Amino acid sequence: MTGATSGRRAGPRAFLLSSDGWPYLLVPFIPLAIVLDLAGVSAVAIFFASALGVIPTAALMGRATEELAARSGPGVGGLLNVTFGNAPELIIALFALEKGLHEVVKASLTGSVIGNILLVLGMSMFVGGLGREKQEFNRVAAGAQSSMLLLAAVALVMPAIFEGINGSGLPSPGAERVAYDGDVEHLSLVVALVLIASYGAGLVFSLKTHRSLFNPPHEPDEEEAQPWSVRRSVGALALAGVAVAVMSEILVGSISEAATSIGLTEFFVGAIVVATVGNAAEHWVAVLVAHKNKMDLSVNIAIGSSAQIALFVAPVLVLVSFVLGPGPMPLVFNGFELGAFLLAVLIANHVTAEGESTWFEGVQLLCVYAVVALAFAFA
Amino acid sequence: MTGATSGRRAGPRAFLLSSDGWPYLLVPFIPLAIVLDLAGVSAVAIFFASALGVIPTAALMGRATEELAARSGPGVGGLLNVTFGNAPELIIALFALEKGLHEVVKASLTGSVIGNILLVLGMSMFVGGLGREKQEFNRVAAGAQSSMLLLAAVALVMPAIFEGINGSGLPSPGAERVAYDGDVEHLSLVVALVLIASYGAGLVFSLKTHRSLFNPPHEPDEEEAQPWSVRRSVGALALAGVAVAVMSEILVGSISEAATSIGLTEFFVGAIVVATVGNAAEHWVAVLVAHKNKMDLSVNIAIGSSAQIALFVAPVLVLVSFVLGPGPMPLVFNGFELGAFLLAVLIANHVTAEGESTWFEGVQLLCVYAVVALAFAFA
Amino acid sequence: MTGATSGRRAGPRAFLLSSDGWPYLLVPFIPLAIVLDLAGVSAVAIFFASALGVIPTAALMGRATEELAARSGPGVGGLLNVTFGNAPELIIALFALEKGLHEVVKASLTGSVIGNILLVLGMSMFVGGLGREKQEFNRVAAGAQSSMLLLAAVALVMPAIFEGINGSGLPSPGAERVAYDGDVEHLSLVVALVLIASYGAGLVFSLKTHRSLFNPPHEPDEEEAQPWSVRRSVGALALAGVAVAVMSEILVGSISEAATSIGLTEFFVGAIVVATVGNAAEHWVAVLVAHKNKMDLSVNIAIGSSAQIALFVAPVLVLVSFVLGPGPMPLVFNGFELGAFLLAVLIANHVTAEGESTWFEGVQLLCVYAVVALAFAFA
Repeated sequence: MTGATSGRRAGPRAFLLSSDGWPYLLVPFIPLAIVLDLAGVSAVAIFFASALGVIPTAALMGRATEELAARSGPGVGGLLNVTFGNAPELIIALFALEKGLHEVVKASLTGSVIGNILLVLGMSMFVGGLGREKQEFNRVAAGAQSSMLLLAAVALVMPAIFEGINGSGLPSPGAERVAYDGDVEHLSLVVALVLIASYGAGLVFSLKTHRSLFNPPHEPDEEEAQPWSVRRSVGALALAGVAVAVMSEILVGSISEAATSIGLTEFFVGAIVVATVGNAAEHWVAVLVAHKNKMDLSVNIAIGSSAQIALFVAPVLVLVSFVLGPGPMPLVFNGFELGAFLLAVLIANHVTAEGESTWFEGVQLLCVYAVVALAFAFA
Repeated sequence: MTGATSGRRAGPRAFLLSSDGWPYLLVPFIPLAIVLDLAGVSAVAIFFASALGVIPTAALMGRATEELAARSGPGVGGLLNVTFGNAPELIIALFALEKGLHEVVKASLTGSVIGNILLVLGMSMFVGGLGREKQEFNRVAAGAQSSMLLLAAVALVMPAIFEGINGSGLPSPGAERVAYDGDVEHLSLVVALVLIASYGAGLVFSLKTHRSLFNPPHEPDEEEAQPWSVRRSVGALALAGVAVAVMSEILVGSISEAATSIGLTEFFVGAIVVATVGNAAEHWVAVLVAHKNKMDLSVNIAIGSSAQIALFVAPVLVLVSFVLGPGPMPLVFNGFELGAFLLAVLIANHVTAEGESTWFEGVQLLCVYAVVALAFAFA
Repeated sequence: MTGATSGRRAGPRAFLLSSDGWPYLLVPFIPLAIVLDLAGVSAVAIFFASALGVIPTAALMGRATEELAARSGPGVGGLLNVTFGNAPELIIALFALEKGLHEVVKASLTGSVIGNILLVLGMSMFVGGLGREKQEFNRVAAGAQSSMLLLAAVALVMPAIFEGINGSGLPSPGAERVAYDGDVEHLSLVVALVLIASYGAGLVFSLKTHRSLFNPPHEPDEEEAQPWSVRRSVGALALAGVAVAVMSEILVGSISEAATSIGLTEFFVGAIVVATVGNAAEHWVAVLVAHKNKMDLSVNIAIGSSAQIALFVAPVLVLVSFVLGPGPMPLVFNGFELGAFLLAVLIANHVTAEGESTWFEGVQLLCVYAVVALAFAFA
């Protein structure tokens, strides 16, 4: 962080090469993606250019949100973080929803959740644990978020059980959009409302009644960087929002054709590639702070982000699907998604139960991610 | 409790309005249910009158059992509590068994288990946690009972796996009674015997070798109420037994028709409505003591009652089904029941692992219950 | 151990009757099995003679490995233990693989894992817990091995999900060898490589970076027995290897016919009988040390052996199946195996989470094993 700070004082070039600044090296991919898209060249090139272009826009959005949140009190700041924290994923998903790519949306939701738990937390525990006997974190805060994931797991499994028994069976990973009957759509709708209500209760818990659990004592070196003005933050947020939207539309527009060209399924692309790029900047921060032995923050980013996607982004998308796109998107996940989701949640509960981690736990999480990704690739 | 105590001294009216006495306000529903049943009016009216009539009889039975148990030593008292603790559920289930309503019986068993874990424990943690930083309970005692539930989960899942692979598939929630082949019936029989043996070992553990774990130090204010004589307790027990039996017969007789009239499935009625009324009085006590910050007792009631149903009531019903009713009832649960049961047990293990609870954990449990109940309603 | 020690000094007869020596009483079954096999008598007699003959050879192999390991440093010693620790199971499985008995191989792998978790750990906790308030063990070491099992569970479930959705469905327990398509074979191959890599990381963790966790302070009474020379150890290892191989070949050759004659399925014989005899000597040690209140060692044997089978023996067999026998053996387990495996792993995580055990936990594990074995018997 010191490097980043002095970098910012020393000029843009040093900043770009600092540990915070690297995502902005990818900015050239933004105009490149636009040009390639207008030129109508190969979908694969468009897909990769826009995927790389998403990363700096998401990073800017995250930074601007943090700056704005730091200027507000913890209550409003927390709400800002919640609202914009997973905005890139939400925006990408909205474009996919509008195109009726329901299976891609659900794949990327699953991919975000398991990517945060297995890839991000795994990498954090591995990198942070190297050369250390063990790392410690607040297991009560981590446990509260793991519980939310367990609740989400129940909520996301029930419509699938329903559809498996009463309906036409679970979707296959190959399908683009399955036609469901009205019952499972209504069930998904009310389940989504319950999840959002529970997420709201979680905000009251973490921002109000048990705030101290989630706000570890002030760490001075974080503050050295010169804070942004409110005007600059809002401007950056608006700019980032537009850029994310443009990149997302191009990315989503190229998915189907690009997947076919590369020989991968849309399911794999949604669950592994799309889920990764939307979170890349955030992931980097989690690993970086783990390396600095701030495991509380690292676990909070990884598990908290997973919980936010499962309990807020996913149900919001269900609600939106009733008014946007070709029709409602029920929360019916396929067998791979359910298996990966349930097992990842069990593992998240297990590794956070003790409030301690070692590099080996990190390796195990990464191995689980590898197995899941391999299964998705073969699907 | 002070209110209840002084109420009992001050006269029946104050007692009825006290926190212990309200179930007895429902006594008029007992004769009402009998009259409606004899008059042969609408099944819905009979169903609701008898459902409400079950509550005071179950409360009286619970009270009489406690009084009798308090007069005996901990060993005999514990056995009394075990034998009569879930007597109302058992009696209702016996009548349903005799009528061949196997799917209703299994639904109400599932509903009792998940209702205790999710609804009762959730409400207790929520109400008890309001205004408190956190509440604590003995995690070793809670853990021993959660383990029993995990064991029960294995035992209850295995026959379903067996039937799913070797037999004609799992039952659907709509079916009244499925014809199984002899193998799964014999498997259920021996599994039931193993469960009962394990439950017996649990009694030796909690009443004999590790009694102190389950008997927290004496709390004086419990004793202020004037104890009942043995004669009075036995009389009340006999009276309650007869009343429960009468109400149960009327209730079970009206289920099918009432469910059709209301537009709900028998499955939902069994799992949510029947399971709730049989436990209502007990549930109330659990929430009340949680509010008084006696979480040990509250958790003990909720998880202990679940374990008792899964490891004692359910296998006893399997054994009885070989001699009562149209034929053996194997322990083959449908997909909703299995999913709800397994997830509820995992959650029970998770929330009791730390020996601490907050209001937010209560909200989460209630949300999971809402999701499960919604899925059951749509089934 | 004192008895065993003095026994060894006092002469072979006392040794044979000591707590360490009893497996060698079964030595006569080795020539008996050979004679019966050559005489071509009933398969049942051959099966039981060779099953009993496996026990002393496995015991000798275990003893020789320990002696050799004690002479090496902890690094090489650990590697020796790893390599030869489950050698009998591996040798039996290799013969079954060569004969194309894939379902028997997978059944015996499953049986070894659940047998170690449920039967061995259950018996250890039960015997060790009798007459004691509770027993304690290092929950960090136990937790690391439980995590490995959780990872293995994910890895072993994913190919089954894949096959259930994309392929021709899960195998039934009756089948001898199912024809799979190439995709699931390749998926199994890479999953096997990930598991072996993770197992290698586990060795680095337990033998190098966190060695102290797994090496509790030296306990003098273990050392009283006179150590074997390297020459004697190597000789015993070679002798045991030959004997295990001979017994395994005879055992595997008689399985199919013996199972049919007794009226049991090959699946049950593989999962319960074969899995038990290969581990019998090791199991005995685990129970013995639990009785002596050395729960750390007991838990380490039980959970460690399970983890080794799931993360090392199983993937090695998959790799070998590409060059030995009729064709690749993908890691597609049937529903019984998956259910038993997942539930056993959850239970292992649960009972090791607290670092404490009582006799009742032992009883519960044994009850779960009974339920699983019953379901396997009916399958």
